[in-house]
Amino acid sequence: MAKCLVAQSGGPTSVINATVAGVVKANQLNPVYDTVLGGLHGIEGILDELFVDLTHMSEDENRVLRQSPSSALGSCRYKLKRENKADFEKLFAILEKHDIRTMFYTGGNDSMDTVAALDEYAKANGIEGFQFVGCPKTVDNDLMVMDHAPGFASAAKFIATTAYQTWMDSTVYTRQDVFILETMGRDAGWLAASACVSGIVDMVVLPEVPFDKESFLATVKKHVDAKNKCYIVVSEGVRYEDGTYLAAGESKNDTFGHAVLGGSGHALREMILEAGVSERAKVQDLSNAQRSHASEQSKVDVEESFKLGMSAHMRSIDPSFTGQTVYVKRIEGETYDVEFLATASSNIANHVRHFPTEWILPEYAGITQEAHDYFAPLLVGQPEIMRDEKGLPRQVKPYYMR
Amino acid sequence: MAKCLVAQSGGPTSVINATVAGVVKANQLNPVYDTVLGGLHGIEGILDELFVDLTHMSEDENRVLRQSPSSALGSCRYKLKRENKADFEKLFAILEKHDIRTMFYTGGNDSMDTVAALDEYAKANGIEGFQFVGCPKTVDNDLMVMDHAPGFASAAKFIATTAYQTWMDSTVYTRQDVFILETMGRDAGWLAASACVSGIVDMVVLPEVPFDKESFLATVKKHVDAKNKCYIVVSEGVRYEDGTYLAAGESKNDTFGHAVLGGSGHALREMILEAGVSERAKVQDLSNAQRSHASEQSKVDVEESFKLGMSAHMRSIDPSFTGQTVYVKRIEGETYDVEFLATASSNIANHVRHFPTEWILPEYAGITQEAHDYFAPLLVGQPEIMRDEKGLPRQVKPYYMR
Repeated sequence: MAKCLVAQSGGPTSVINATVAGVVKANQLNPVYDTVLGGLHGIEGILDELFVDLTHMSEDENRVLRQSPSSALGSCRYKLKRENKADFEKLFAILEKHDIRTMFYTGGNDSMDTVAALDEYAKANGIEGFQFVGCPKTVDNDLMVMDHAPGFASAAKFIATTAYQTWMDSTVYTRQDVFILETMGRDAGWLAASACVSGIVDMVVLPEVPFDKESFLATVKKHVDAKNKCYIVVSEGVRYEDGTYLAAGESKNDTFGHAVLGGSGHALREMILEAGVSERAKVQDLSNAQRSHASEQSKVDVEESFKLGMSAHMRSIDPSFTGQTVYVKRIEGETYDVEFLATASSNIANHVRHFPTEWILPEYAGITQEAHDYFAPLLVGQPEIMRDEKGLPRQVKPYYMR
Repeated sequence: MAKCLVAQSGGPTSVINATVAGVVKANQLNPVYDTVLGGLHGIEGILDELFVDLTHMSEDENRVLRQSPSSALGSCRYKLKRENKADFEKLFAILEKHDIRTMFYTGGNDSMDTVAALDEYAKANGIEGFQFVGCPKTVDNDLMVMDHAPGFASAAKFIATTAYQTWMDSTVYTRQDVFILETMGRDAGWLAASACVSGIVDMVVLPEVPFDKESFLATVKKHVDAKNKCYIVVSEGVRYEDGTYLAAGESKNDTFGHAVLGGSGHALREMILEAGVSERAKVQDLSNAQRSHASEQSKVDVEESFKLGMSAHMRSIDPSFTGQTVYVKRIEGETYDVEFLATASSNIANHVRHFPTEWILPEYAGITQEAHDYFAPLLVGQPEIMRDEKGLPRQVKPYYMR
């Protein structure tokens, strides 16, 4: 029997560890692999042969892992470039050396590209006996093919809850006040749009709609004139018609060439104060908390993420199952339900699934009923959170720190 | 029979509404007053005779109110100044007109000063038949006399949880990284210190210790050199030896003459990057979410806040009970327990209870075991949160919007 390897890449989410827990649990139910290795810090750590043995993880640890946010195995921003053959050769040598037959890789579209690239390389070089399986995750929900990506629903739930609660907070005084909630979402507005589930959002500013300063300020003024308040949600990735970011002053590129954003909320605040539309405007940037606040996971999300890991493991029994990504498809019907399917990882790699523009109401007024119907079943259910004696959620100690 | 009035002032907390719920429930158990009025927007709205009738609140609404953050009755920053006799005359005339015998006022030290001032005015002018009772609340935990203020423990729990979760998030990459979590705390470091309950904080920067840039940067460097990471928590109100705020560039005064803060996290970030101590530093400002994230209330906190409202109502049966604030005292012993006592509101008004300097470790290294022992029992227990069909917590619609 050979080993399998599970590793994580890209930005953390509050349920990405549940997929790892699913892979481990599936192998305990049917020990297809004699060892389940965790690769630390994604491809970067695998190239350094940094592994931990997860095979005999206890049920208690498995449950704690499912309720732990972030990437317990560590993550990386290291990009496996197709032209860098040395990396591929080294990686295959390491897999060979450790008798690793299957590699499960969780991540977003860059990580799915890594899965596709490894499969391509093997096929192009006549290398046999290895399988590469992608497990999607991203709070941004911008992955193609699937109904939604694991990680999104929990972030959306935290955002919608926090929107309602900070809206209550922001309206207690009689004074004029604008509140701006900034969410993640580099290219797609799913997270910002999810705040509308709270029912209190006056305006939502999404990357899918080129930003129009004049129209934006006129609409803020309309709300402030009517009720002295305006609650705005803005995605970090909002751009003007010409493609420049709202927060352009602060942007720079990460190692993948993506713009590093943040600051669109403050850009809107400056705009509003400068135009004299409101005397006062406050910004809350949800920053890292929105993707790692696991104490309010969506039960649907954590369970789907766990099952996705199980499904990936179970499908890998078929030696021809490689270069594939397992994903969730919603089944049409009265009651929410999903099925777990697989597609070529290349179908997901390097694409962006935008929030549908037909779901966006004009003048930043929010989202359509169809969008609400899409969100509604995803945020439902509370997993029972195990807590320590101080009342804090039990969380795994990251494996890369052990 | 006369009426009583309950109103809220100052910044919201996630359990301040539980005190209102306690007053209402106590009057349902023993209808000392024929009507329980809610005053909207504190003193400001009372002067405009903005009342709602809370007498017959259903048990369901009472429970939803207990799990709703912010000030459901609205709040105000309006300061009742002793020299402004017209306000006092008007207020007493309104109480008289509406047959209001007792006024319960929830708030921080400014609000306790309002309670004291109303009592003083009545006594100085031979006005009889009115009672003024203070119910403390503040996330800052800076009120004198009491062991802790309702509202603090839930904010502390959110902060400690978020600290652990964002720490996990901030360490997943192998790259050099400093993470800075900014909490509220204008004058006192209780909230920032509470992050240490998470067990992961490398450095905590509190207002009680004059800020020493050189020593701070040297300590950050020590952590970064040792493990490529440093997790820092900073209070918004941190000052240099000469009294200027870290975030001085952005400060201005509110209507009470208090500095409006925010930005100490970004000030530290600039300092670290400028000194070249780390290549990268990220800031999360918890902003309004830390005081209104009620979906993770501490059960101890919400129950004490509710009982405090009950106690205030029950004690008001004694007509001589006025100018008093009900508070919580911790009982010494193996098991955590409290008693509810009362003190003259003037003992609380306009003072600040700092985080004990003897509980602060040198070189920003955290807090002592005594401080941990103080925090430990406060964050315990999860109230069962009732949720709507979308999975979001049920929250009251603010009374000032009905």
